[in-house]
Amino acid sequence: MKKISEYAADVESAISCLEFPDKKLSTLYRPIEYALSAGGKRIRPVITLMAADAFGGKAAEAMRSALGIETFHNFTLLHDDVMDKSDLRRGRPTVHKKYDENTAILSGDTMLTIATQWATDVEGDILRDVLDTFNEMAIDVYEGQRLDMDFETRDNISLSEYLEMIEGKTGSLLGAAAKIGAMIGGASEEDARLLYEFGVMTGLAFQIQDDWLDTFGDSTTFGKPIGGDILNGKKTYLYVAALEEGGQTAEALRVAFNMPSGDMKIKAVTRLYEKIGVGEKCKKAVGFYSSKAFKAVNATSLGEEQKDAFRKLAEKLIGRKK
Amino acid sequence: MKKISEYAADVESAISCLEFPDKKLSTLYRPIEYALSAGGKRIRPVITLMAADAFGGKAAEAMRSALGIETFHNFTLLHDDVMDKSDLRRGRPTVHKKYDENTAILSGDTMLTIATQWATDVEGDILRDVLDTFNEMAIDVYEGQRLDMDFETRDNISLSEYLEMIEGKTGSLLGAAAKIGAMIGGASEEDARLLYEFGVMTGLAFQIQDDWLDTFGDSTTFGKPIGGDILNGKKTYLYVAALEEGGQTAEALRVAFNMPSGDMKIKAVTRLYEKIGVGEKCKKAVGFYSSKAFKAVNATSLGEEQKDAFRKLAEKLIGRKK
Repeated sequence: MKKISEYAADVESAISCLEFPDKKLSTLYRPIEYALSAGGKRIRPVITLMAADAFGGKAAEAMRSALGIETFHNFTLLHDDVMDKSDLRRGRPTVHKKYDENTAILSGDTMLTIATQWATDVEGDILRDVLDTFNEMAIDVYEGQRLDMDFETRDNISLSEYLEMIEGKTGSLLGAAAKIGAMIGGASEEDARLLYEFGVMTGLAFQIQDDWLDTFGDSTTFGKPIGGDILNGKKTYLYVAALEEGGQTAEALRVAFNMPSGDMKIKAVTRLYEKIGVGEKCKKAVGFYSSKAFKAVNATSLGEEQKDAFRKLAEKLIGRKK
Repeated sequence: MKKISEYAADVESAISCLEFPDKKLSTLYRPIEYALSAGGKRIRPVITLMAADAFGGKAAEAMRSALGIETFHNFTLLHDDVMDKSDLRRGRPTVHKKYDENTAILSGDTMLTIATQWATDVEGDILRDVLDTFNEMAIDVYEGQRLDMDFETRDNISLSEYLEMIEGKTGSLLGAAAKIGAMIGGASEEDARLLYEFGVMTGLAFQIQDDWLDTFGDSTTFGKPIGGDILNGKKTYLYVAALEEGGQTAEALRVAFNMPSGDMKIKAVTRLYEKIGVGEKCKKAVGFYSSKAFKAVNATSLGEEQKDAFRKLAEKLIGRKK
């Protein structure tokens, strides 16, 4: 097994070698190249490569599918940015800002079909399973995104609904990335299922940790200003868990959440989170889903070196320090 | 073989029986049901059913793929309506008007994945070919749509570019609908290729005829007010062919095309089209592509009854009277 950074470098290099039709259709394909070249951790395609490598030494054969997974992820970011009217993504103008909204819609659609083509560029005997896994994952992601949008106007979200939302939006893509890699590597059905479980649980732990860091993290290591979720009125694990506690502090939280955007709001909401002790509950949930991820990978038939690679990956993703 | 209207009724009935998840996710799926229930001629799924029936008596088995083709078509209409900011489609509010733009984007994305799932709900031995045919068709459609968008700001479009655009936007979907049906019916590779050719050529003839009808048709049988393309400054076959003639009349056409929207503009542009004689050129092109469609179907190994059914379909589509 290679190091995580080496798989990521392979992905980056494959992306830089991609060739799209040029000239007349540059208005369609240039925005796709732009979206794909934004960098990032490339964690999803890395999982695909790792899984193919771990089960069958087939990282090279899995590259096309890995790029399909990454292209799908970037397609969702592109359309999400249109829906959220976000101007910036990884420090650069979003596609609809750099080009225009119609370009973002159409080039995004094109990315979804290209993602499907690449993800399913596999041997015939696993095509049906890979295609089904990919399409079901895509549906999960749309459903998660829809729930997230609906949460914006709701104030009675249960923790289980919140978990359903992040399982759709974040978990299932990591799960499918791992499972498709495992299938390409020739994993047994049970091992492929366990790798899917590993991906989903890692995704849940990652997202909940991300919610925690957004309020309790350190902006220098987190990479974003602290309190962004609070300012945007985002209904995170912290908020939903706090409201589920009920009582007077929960009522105070509702009030604080409606304060005008600013440092005062961040301070007020954070203090209430602390008073309710929801930070600890959040960390416990991260631990719970991390251990589920570890259990899944430990239950596979993989050797210790391979298991260790996946555990390291999960730790790297989830274990970001305060 | 059934009558065209019977295949269409089968499609309509299958659409009315579709069941999507309800309750919590109605915000995602209700707009999809709405989009699919808009009616229309259902010509694309009808071609799929007819082809499966003609080659193997397998219309029933092809229904899922036919619905996938129709869902893809409606997905493109949905996103096109967002891009064009159209308020009405078949006399009803468009999805982004009835719901909102973000809903139209996300439910449209969902339709594309559902379309891919349904279109590829076929036996394993033809899965790869059906999936490739579907995805390549989708790319053709996006490229055609992109060209169409780019034409809006260009005034030097060649007739061959225009044909490339409508082949992508209209021809390839009819071609893929026919080819996928043929493959499900068990057609030989050559017959499937010929059916694809039939679909593409029928699509070209249909679109060029549509351009002609929009200026020279009769609003009662055409179903839309005459002159809409001229009012919208749409670069149709008539316009592109007229400009290719060059000379003073072409220059006058450029000027007339920049007149303020209104009856005066329709009259001025129509008179120039008549002066250049581009209506006849347009009708000749319709004849040319119709005969190509007929030749393709005649070259298949189908029996006369089956060939006749396809010829009738093409006539019905293309031969709409003035």
